[in-house]
Amino acid sequence: MSHGIMTYSDKEAFAQAVVAGDVRSAARLMRLADDREPLARDLLSLLFPHTGRAHIVGITGNPGAGKSSLVDNLITSWRGRGLSVGVVAVDPSSPFSGGAVLGDRIRMMRHATDPGVFIRSLATRGALGGLSRSAGDIATVMDAMGLDRVLIETVGVGQDEVDVVRMAHTTVVVMVPGLGDEIQILKAGILEIADIFAVNKADKPGADRLAMELQSVQHLGTDQRHIPIVRTVATAQEGIEELVDAIETHAGLLRSSGELQERDARRLTQAVFQLVHEAVDADLTELFDRLNKENAIIDELLSRRSAPATVAQRLLELINKI
Amino acid sequence: MSHGIMTYSDKEAFAQAVVAGDVRSAARLMRLADDREPLARDLLSLLFPHTGRAHIVGITGNPGAGKSSLVDNLITSWRGRGLSVGVVAVDPSSPFSGGAVLGDRIRMMRHATDPGVFIRSLATRGALGGLSRSAGDIATVMDAMGLDRVLIETVGVGQDEVDVVRMAHTTVVVMVPGLGDEIQILKAGILEIADIFAVNKADKPGADRLAMELQSVQHLGTDQRHIPIVRTVATAQEGIEELVDAIETHAGLLRSSGELQERDARRLTQAVFQLVHEAVDADLTELFDRLNKENAIIDELLSRRSAPATVAQRLLELINKI
Repeated sequence: MSHGIMTYSDKEAFAQAVVAGDVRSAARLMRLADDREPLARDLLSLLFPHTGRAHIVGITGNPGAGKSSLVDNLITSWRGRGLSVGVVAVDPSSPFSGGAVLGDRIRMMRHATDPGVFIRSLATRGALGGLSRSAGDIATVMDAMGLDRVLIETVGVGQDEVDVVRMAHTTVVVMVPGLGDEIQILKAGILEIADIFAVNKADKPGADRLAMELQSVQHLGTDQRHIPIVRTVATAQEGIEELVDAIETHAGLLRSSGELQERDARRLTQAVFQLVHEAVDADLTELFDRLNKENAIIDELLSRRSAPATVAQRLLELINKI
Repeated sequence: MSHGIMTYSDKEAFAQAVVAGDVRSAARLMRLADDREPLARDLLSLLFPHTGRAHIVGITGNPGAGKSSLVDNLITSWRGRGLSVGVVAVDPSSPFSGGAVLGDRIRMMRHATDPGVFIRSLATRGALGGLSRSAGDIATVMDAMGLDRVLIETVGVGQDEVDVVRMAHTTVVVMVPGLGDEIQILKAGILEIADIFAVNKADKPGADRLAMELQSVQHLGTDQRHIPIVRTVATAQEGIEELVDAIETHAGLLRSSGELQERDARRLTQAVFQLVHEAVDADLTELFDRLNKENAIIDELLSRRSAPATVAQRLLELINKI
């Protein structure tokens, strides 16, 4: 089936296969979405009516906080509760660091043969919001497939990652004692993001102090939410059930208070915004390519006759006239 | 002088003070630019005819590569050659890491009383391209002040930083032995960015191998440029003169080959693009705020009647109609 000649009923059949849980179709759609194929947009729109059932959980924290081990254990716990699980693992990649520590993922291989678990790593970093858009698309596919819980694991290092977290219904912030960055982290508005704190490596010195600090700073947030603090030792499977309980309790609270809908609305409008933004960015890039061929404008700039702000103003007027 | 009631001649006087090298006016303008004050744009445009003299040098590399020590030594060397130096130190700040290691800057304090040195740290991370735009604005002010060399120091961790490097005429990539990430770094297209490699901590084991690897991968780049490799031990002031020589030689080559103009054109069109982008982003954010109040659209999304792509398409048509 070449997607170059896909008819509407082909697309419907494809979407139906995903909704029926067909792993190969789902994986193919994720690749298409990652490659920004126009076909992916049509298919995602066809899937959309079948979404809104999965509870989406963001899990974030500094590198070395043990997020991958925690995710591994969360999968096992949810599976034990009869729930299926999707995981979107967002690896930071940069022109300098070269990206993912793939070794960390090997641990999760034991779930590879479990049909109730679907793991997808995301190593690409595209244009603005590219990371969160890709993660959002994958979460949409997983939701449509009927997976009960979708975990989005991200490394807390930049705006892209914060945007990813904003795609979640419930966000778990993983912290570990001894990194010495507790206060900075709290300063940086993490209280606004976290629904649950996991103090991982809770057997290490400093865990008590960290948990106490997290407790005592809760009143600093703009809203007066209570943020549960769960101690875990992911490598020893300690505290995992408590963490899953905390997530499920939060999901229940969101549902009963009506806040689930609010967060869902936020997620969906953000998805709309990203699509609009991407389209506008593509237009601007085209404009920029044209600008680079406009020798008259380049000469004005090089000779310092027109300042960048002056040229920008002219271009904006041009855009608004179109 | 309140900038609320600044007349054109007030602005001209302000700009003239900066061009005359007045440090207080320059610092004030940098703050205004950082705060995205409209006044800053006017002042930067007035300064623009006085720019184009400084040679702008980007210096980047992984955290721990010893960039700050190198910068400190580069300043001393240039000062010894009778050249004035501006430094824009771009510190990564994120909601999680909390930003700058300020201790590293203390070393540079010995230059604080030297009127031929102007150092400005930049810890803010704004919207898209915010970091590179701020760095570019500061470099513009330093150029207009008559500083001979402007160093933009950045930590190589993301797209923002790569954009900052693109604002430079000459880019030095600092690498250190033993980080074990040589191959990844080279994979990631750093050959496209680097004009000079500095192998810092060259007294450490592995420096020979790193230098050899850098030598042997040069032919992998898309262009067949020769990228000089300079060994330095910043903490012992070794190799600094050689590094400055390499930078000055590169600057000379750019001038004699005409490539300096090309790079200048690239810098300036990028500045234009960023300004256009920022203005469009502001419009989109306004649109998004309106979208979040459109209950009919939110309901369509929440009830899964309209997919995000469908809503995005409608909004794009709306934008194009305006």
